[in-house]
Amino acid sequence: MTKVAVFGAGSWGTAFAMVLANAGNQVSVWARRESLCEVINSEHANPDYLPGLRLPDAISATHDPAAAADGAEAIVLAVPSQSLRANLTEWAGVLPNAVPLVSLMKGVELGTTKRMSEVIAELTGAGPERIAVVSGPNLAREIAEGQPAAAVVACTDEGTAARLQKLCHSPTFRPYTNTDVIGCEVGGACKNVIGLAVGMAVGLGFGDNARASVITRGLVEIARLGRALGADEHTFSGLAGLGDLVATCSSPLSRNRTFGEKLGQGLSVAEISGGTRQVAEGVKSCESVTQLAHQHDVEMPIAEHVTKVVAGEMTPKDMLFGLVSRSAKSERW
Amino acid sequence: MTKVAVFGAGSWGTAFAMVLANAGNQVSVWARRESLCEVINSEHANPDYLPGLRLPDAISATHDPAAAADGAEAIVLAVPSQSLRANLTEWAGVLPNAVPLVSLMKGVELGTTKRMSEVIAELTGAGPERIAVVSGPNLAREIAEGQPAAAVVACTDEGTAARLQKLCHSPTFRPYTNTDVIGCEVGGACKNVIGLAVGMAVGLGFGDNARASVITRGLVEIARLGRALGADEHTFSGLAGLGDLVATCSSPLSRNRTFGEKLGQGLSVAEISGGTRQVAEGVKSCESVTQLAHQHDVEMPIAEHVTKVVAGEMTPKDMLFGLVSRSAKSERW
Repeated sequence: MTKVAVFGAGSWGTAFAMVLANAGNQVSVWARRESLCEVINSEHANPDYLPGLRLPDAISATHDPAAAADGAEAIVLAVPSQSLRANLTEWAGVLPNAVPLVSLMKGVELGTTKRMSEVIAELTGAGPERIAVVSGPNLAREIAEGQPAAAVVACTDEGTAARLQKLCHSPTFRPYTNTDVIGCEVGGACKNVIGLAVGMAVGLGFGDNARASVITRGLVEIARLGRALGADEHTFSGLAGLGDLVATCSSPLSRNRTFGEKLGQGLSVAEISGGTRQVAEGVKSCESVTQLAHQHDVEMPIAEHVTKVVAGEMTPKDMLFGLVSRSAKSERW
Repeated sequence: MTKVAVFGAGSWGTAFAMVLANAGNQVSVWARRESLCEVINSEHANPDYLPGLRLPDAISATHDPAAAADGAEAIVLAVPSQSLRANLTEWAGVLPNAVPLVSLMKGVELGTTKRMSEVIAELTGAGPERIAVVSGPNLAREIAEGQPAAAVVACTDEGTAARLQKLCHSPTFRPYTNTDVIGCEVGGACKNVIGLAVGMAVGLGFGDNARASVITRGLVEIARLGRALGADEHTFSGLAGLGDLVATCSSPLSRNRTFGEKLGQGLSVAEISGGTRQVAEGVKSCESVTQLAHQHDVEMPIAEHVTKVVAGEMTPKDMLFGLVSRSAKSERW
């Protein structure tokens, strides 16, 4: 039986561990907290992140990174984006040298504006043929419940992508391969920011027309950034672009959308963050996404406005009216 | 004051008449039923299609097509797709010869597989510089309530598009111009069919991941058909493609999504149609969309499956599992 290690026991890491187990693998999950490991091993559950669901027996947990990585044929990384650098530094002697490193993370590093695959390459020395990304319309809770879903497994090396595809193809999880790592990562990081904007629209009482317009214009600016960074434009029409964006912006399960909704209702970032264990990635990423856009001279009005709202420099209402009231023009923007 | 005529007093025709009135025009609405005209004129309301809303005073109604068209600087056509041919035949001597003809209709004619602009050209003899299309994420009820929305005004003649843009630019309705009439019409006709599929997924209890996947794959097949018909691919990433599709597939206000939901819950087409005045366009259009795809050798698996469900040849469950359980492959389909 193939062993796969998943580093990170948050909701998406755990749900993807379930996919891997259902696809026939032995899965070793690394979790930071020893107490959580004990619960996972003894109760086959992760009540903090996926309450009420039973984990397959093929999943076990450890807080020892060496034990988790030992013998694994692939290492899946599912830690918070802004912790990845510190985590990889800590795990330097532990991660195997020849197996694929798969990122489930959707963010851009603050300060360096590096994508997650760039941080992985920098700290592990792995070549692009070993670094992959899984992305798509994958709300963790639904996947953990066994609802059908599709995703993209991206690696510049088609052989690696195909091997990983096989590894995580379960009866309810259907992975497609793609060679555009950059596009998948840009889509994943930016959708959280657009999700915040859509949430604000919902929180302000706007309807489905406005929501669909923000999604549409949002995807346009995501693709614009992607092109500037070397992504393939087609990725943004696919599962890791449009698909992930629509799922994030439609679902009440999405942390980013929910966070945005509360901003739209008038709460401050501090007030909202105070009450939740799970922080919305977009709140941290919007600043680095906007920074990345500036570095590459790309116009991203929605991301820019979201960053101002998160920084407390603009109200959600002013932001949305600012976006819709611009003068009429041609659609080819 | 500019006069504009709107032929058709259904929900979208009436809502667009409100946009035109709010943009400063005098609007003459043609309605088939004299009784509806009387209610519109005396009560400033259209309780059949937009209950509870007051129409602006600049809107009046008549069931005399000549009176509606007289002096109008633009003719807006908002009748059911499958009635357009009969209506235009009836109005042959009445429509002015030199003003733009604007289609709000989203469908493909059964039998001929003609788009609405093609039917208009055939029956009125108007050249492409006079034929325009308005499309986008425009749920009628929200627009009538004055919620902000964006749309596309498409005409191969940029001057005509720009004039119409000005005509319907209101404080809450923001039109963009586009020259791709074909793309806007293909997007508009097909989104209803994909909306039915998404509705079925919802009715069967599938979640947001599956819904986002159907939307994503749906847009891919819409764009594929569009390319074969000569559309500009970019249109499908815009408001008349992605935008309209997302609004239709997200909103409980969408007739097509609601109809699909009931199909997903196990009701038959006859059972659902029996209870509603407003028929879902996708139910009529799926057959002609599928026919169009066959004629141009374009693969449209979702549209094809929806057509089978509507014809009673397949259950919604078999349809959705048929779509998700195909073997894993590369995303570039």
